Amino acid sequence: MNVLHGIVPPLLTPMHQDGAVDHDSLDRLIDHLLDAGVHGIFPLGSSGQVAYLTDAERDDVVRRTVERVAGRVPVVVGVPDFTARRMAEHARRAVELGADAIVATAPLYALQDIAEIAESYRMLAASVDVPLIAYDVPVRVNTKLGIDMVMQLASEGVIKGIKDSSGDDVGFRRLVDANRAAGEPLDVLTGHEVMVDSMFLLGAGGAVPGLANVDPAGYVRMWDAAVAGDWDAARKEQARLNRLFDIVFTPAGLGGDAGGIGAFKAAVARLGIISSGTMPAPLRPLDDSALKAIDGILAEVGLLDTASA
Amino acid sequence: MNVLHGIVPPLLTPMHQDGAVDHDSLDRLIDHLLDAGVHGIFPLGSSGQVAYLTDAERDDVVRRTVERVAGRVPVVVGVPDFTARRMAEHARRAVELGADAIVATAPLYALQDIAEIAESYRMLAASVDVPLIAYDVPVRVNTKLGIDMVMQLASEGVIKGIKDSSGDDVGFRRLVDANRAAGEPLDVLTGHEVMVDSMFLLGAGGAVPGLANVDPAGYVRMWDAAVAGDWDAARKEQARLNRLFDIVFTPAGLGGDAGGIGAFKAAVARLGIISSGTMPAPLRPLDDSALKAIDGILAEVGLLDTASA
Amino acid sequence: MNVLHGIVPPLLTPMHQDGAVDHDSLDRLIDHLLDAGVHGIFPLGSSGQVAYLTDAERDDVVRRTVERVAGRVPVVVGVPDFTARRMAEHARRAVELGADAIVATAPLYALQDIAEIAESYRMLAASVDVPLIAYDVPVRVNTKLGIDMVMQLASEGVIKGIKDSSGDDVGFRRLVDANRAAGEPLDVLTGHEVMVDSMFLLGAGGAVPGLANVDPAGYVRMWDAAVAGDWDAARKEQARLNRLFDIVFTPAGLGGDAGGIGAFKAAVARLGIISSGTMPAPLRPLDDSALKAIDGILAEVGLLDTASA
Amino acid sequence: MNVLHGIVPPLLTPMHQDGAVDHDSLDRLIDHLLDAGVHGIFPLGSSGQVAYLTDAERDDVVRRTVERVAGRVPVVVGVPDFTARRMAEHARRAVELGADAIVATAPLYALQDIAEIAESYRMLAASVDVPLIAYDVPVRVNTKLGIDMVMQLASEGVIKGIKDSSGDDVGFRRLVDANRAAGEPLDVLTGHEVMVDSMFLLGAGGAVPGLANVDPAGYVRMWDAAVAGDWDAARKEQARLNRLFDIVFTPAGLGGDAGGIGAFKAAVARLGIISSGTMPAPLRPLDDSALKAIDGILAEVGLLDTASA
Repeated sequence: MNVLHGIVPPLLTPMHQDGAVDHDSLDRLIDHLLDAGVHGIFPLGSSGQVAYLTDAERDDVVRRTVERVAGRVPVVVGVPDFTARRMAEHARRAVELGADAIVATAPLYALQDIAEIAESYRMLAASVDVPLIAYDVPVRVNTKLGIDMVMQLASEGVIKGIKDSSGDDVGFRRLVDANRAAGEPLDVLTGHEVMVDSMFLLGAGGAVPGLANVDPAGYVRMWDAAVAGDWDAARKEQARLNRLFDIVFTPAGLGGDAGGIGAFKAAVARLGIISSGTMPAPLRPLDDSALKAIDGILAEVGLLDTASA
Repeated sequence: MNVLHGIVPPLLTPMHQDGAVDHDSLDRLIDHLLDAGVHGIFPLGSSGQVAYLTDAERDDVVRRTVERVAGRVPVVVGVPDFTARRMAEHARRAVELGADAIVATAPLYALQDIAEIAESYRMLAASVDVPLIAYDVPVRVNTKLGIDMVMQLASEGVIKGIKDSSGDDVGFRRLVDANRAAGEPLDVLTGHEVMVDSMFLLGAGGAVPGLANVDPAGYVRMWDAAVAGDWDAARKEQARLNRLFDIVFTPAGLGGDAGGIGAFKAAVARLGIISSGTMPAPLRPLDDSALKAIDGILAEVGLLDTASA
Repeated sequence: MNVLHGIVPPLLTPMHQDGAVDHDSLDRLIDHLLDAGVHGIFPLGSSGQVAYLTDAERDDVVRRTVERVAGRVPVVVGVPDFTARRMAEHARRAVELGADAIVATAPLYALQDIAEIAESYRMLAASVDVPLIAYDVPVRVNTKLGIDMVMQLASEGVIKGIKDSSGDDVGFRRLVDANRAAGEPLDVLTGHEVMVDSMFLLGAGGAVPGLANVDPAGYVRMWDAAVAGDWDAARKEQARLNRLFDIVFTPAGLGGDAGGIGAFKAAVARLGIISSGTMPAPLRPLDDSALKAIDGILAEVGLLDTASA
Repeated sequence: MNVLHGIVPPLLTPMHQDGAVDHDSLDRLIDHLLDAGVHGIFPLGSSGQVAYLTDAERDDVVRRTVERVAGRVPVVVGVPDFTARRMAEHARRAVELGADAIVATAPLYALQDIAEIAESYRMLAASVDVPLIAYDVPVRVNTKLGIDMVMQLASEGVIKGIKDSSGDDVGFRRLVDANRAAGEPLDVLTGHEVMVDSMFLLGAGGAVPGLANVDPAGYVRMWDAAVAGDWDAARKEQARLNRLFDIVFTPAGLGGDAGGIGAFKAAVARLGIISSGTMPAPLRPLDDSALKAIDGILAEVGLLDTASA
């Protein structure tokens, strides 16, 4: 049985002005996603700004998310840290709090070869009794997970799925094909926002787009179109979502986290779902010019009443 | 007054076969370094395998090191983590345990621009009342600290020193020159093992070589030669140490941590200073062929009696 | 009117055992492509091993290709060299020999910024009176052509098309969208072999796959399916071609040119279209094990009679 | 016997306003270098903007340089091109025109593995009967020459020297040490401008600094100091030259060639040695602000009379 399929948004972490997790906004955001029909929820990913949270705040997010989701869809929890021993600590706490699966990148900071990275995944899988999902995100951890290692870990039952945010679409396709040839031991999801229709065409089992926090219904419609084989509809929905994705280019002079996740948060706040787009220190907020441009884009794609934009 | 100068070894973390910190070996290693005349001790750096330690183990290493050093030289403690808030948690604990200064890399995993990284250092500096040393190690954190930002932070008093492990020697020289022009607000130390004589020639205020765990006396002799302006002696000592550094090339088929730090640990164990070269999981130990080659090199550079090699 | 659309194979350069261009094989290869219905021919690209040819050999290939194609489809000729002045020399000779368009990468070896690269394209475009196609191939020239520069050059009429071999599919999609928004001043073709169906889905105007030397009919069928909106057929054809593409993974221990283009040449030779798969020095030929594996794959995808494989 | 040692400036190519090679300026520049006591001259390197010259212009530069140098020091000529066959054409012409040695990078544009690159050097060495010098410049050709391959080619007598512009100082030192251990089959020169004292300390046999076009006497003084073992004098000269090197940071908004080589040319023109700092199209000239800053620096380091600055 699959752990993950379809649209699995990496959950934003709404914050109060003092930086504390905003529980009410988190609840509303989860409802917004579930109401749109998403197939899973992924807290403590890059979009959730896990790098900016203390361990106590991580636990707080997991606890609240599990409670609000209440079993309606799987909750898969990110456990990034330096190495397997530290990841396992997070994983055990997450499972205790109700996580349905664990998502783990390659080790950080450490300099490990392929065999050692594979062994890290084995150590982590052995530390919990829920499925382990690999997360391939070289832009953040400086390691690309190779297809041979991934399929080896799949064959051993160590990992049950993979979220590919590597931007290497050829590699992704080869992985999808290898997984199919092996009898589909893995759920293979793309972390792309803007190529999801193409990834569905070539066989991806789902997507984990940060932008789905803003428009989960759009991604669910694209998934449904793909399942139905209506590729023209899928492409049109993707084109609309790609226009929406332009919100990440509206901030000027900010780093990747502040600009990209900041735009997602600002848009969700503008739609009234979360109370504010507050970012964790030292990330600066979007300026008025960016916020205004986001308004225009939200209106253009039909998410905001033109009158109010 | 300087916080750091001269030879400041990044302290290895000796381990028992079960992975626990080996206190007695740690004590002996610290004595070995202090007896050789090193000018500071840096626990919880990359050579200390901080990425493989839990928070409790980090604290254990700091406590024991501070106790053993007993104020004879400064103890500067690494606090690597994702972002400033999490680094500050480590920093406060380290200071409480007696750290004389804190060493911090750029943020990990997070995608921050220069202004945000600078602000991260300001947040961290504000969290403790001991000096903050920047650690430039792009191979591990994927960010190179630019000279303009470093000198800006120096001018604000945010950072008091820098350990440069970037391998960008031209950039290092420009930094040394900029620091001199600014009245030397920074202690500028190189993280190189094999170019230390050159770095001293161009004005480095010290070195943080992992290899100094194996032969601290050699590095101290090179420092003394450099202070005396005897560059031929410095070069000759460096040439000898570079032959010793070849121990890191003896392991075959291991990643950077397992091979490099593994070779340091194996050599220090072979010299009888620590009880074993045990590495943290999932890193594999050196094989007999590597250990034998290390023996030969230790003998060749005069650290091991030829008869026993 | 478009210069380029559909399937435009980058023409292999068949060679005699002594390295000279094999004219008869070249003729047969061109016929093989035209008979399959390709929409253009691109000599002197990377697949044509232009880097290994002297200027006299370049001219020879262009002359013979123009003669054999005889106006049935456009012949677009690569003019790679260090900088615009040297590229212009190649371009003028190619046009004199009958080229219908010119294909140019960013400068090589030179260190130019965006404005200078744009000006290089302007210089080159001014040197001939046929359309100029930009070729984005960072793996070979170490520069990625940015979307803003490309659209600026398009708006000026400097370039009429682009072949994207950058592997940056998100960038490619953004370019397709920007080109559409600008009224389609450019023909936008993908240089991918294995993602062509997806690129067609998102709006690519054609493809330049080296693998089309081996199976031009397969790529033409995929193009026709895409034009007809039959995405399931396109995907199935792509899946078959991707299995065929596995021939490039059969050689062991060779560089990118020797293994990849060597496999294309070996397959085309095995199909009896060219006389041999001879590679230019210093590239080594494929070994028997690779050739045997290629036979198996050719049979599997229906290009070779199983009995003869 | 050594081919190359000491200071070997990579010769700038002075140009008339119409882009043609300025013979009289070239003569004066060569005299400027020889009068200062340089030990060799290297035309058609990166500083010579070889990438912007036609083959006819390359020959012109070599002919004029050989004539003016008239055997006083070796003339070593760059032959960059895509692959060995094309490099060999340049090499044969250069030797016919009087070149004393040939300088060659790894192949460009081509994708070759280590064995193929080594074979490329063998092909090139076999094409001429003068010594071949390897030129390691990954920033331009995207390949780093590995120490094992370099020492293998040295042991075969294929290459007689190497110019290292890789910026990998640790690798350079290991090469110097390996060469010494092998009986010094190679002349090992650094392409650094600003670390030459350090490279001399660790055993470099010479330097190929573009900045030596501006102040050859300064580099010759540093070489003499190094030979005499006066490292403090060497360091002081380097410090002065490093201040001079700041001229390359005066241009704003230009690419690497336009800014760096443009600054060298502008400075040499300002000193009255060449008639103008004209750059080849499409490179833009330095603006007045940069020229004025260069004046100030030239005066500061004693190359320009303060009154005239």
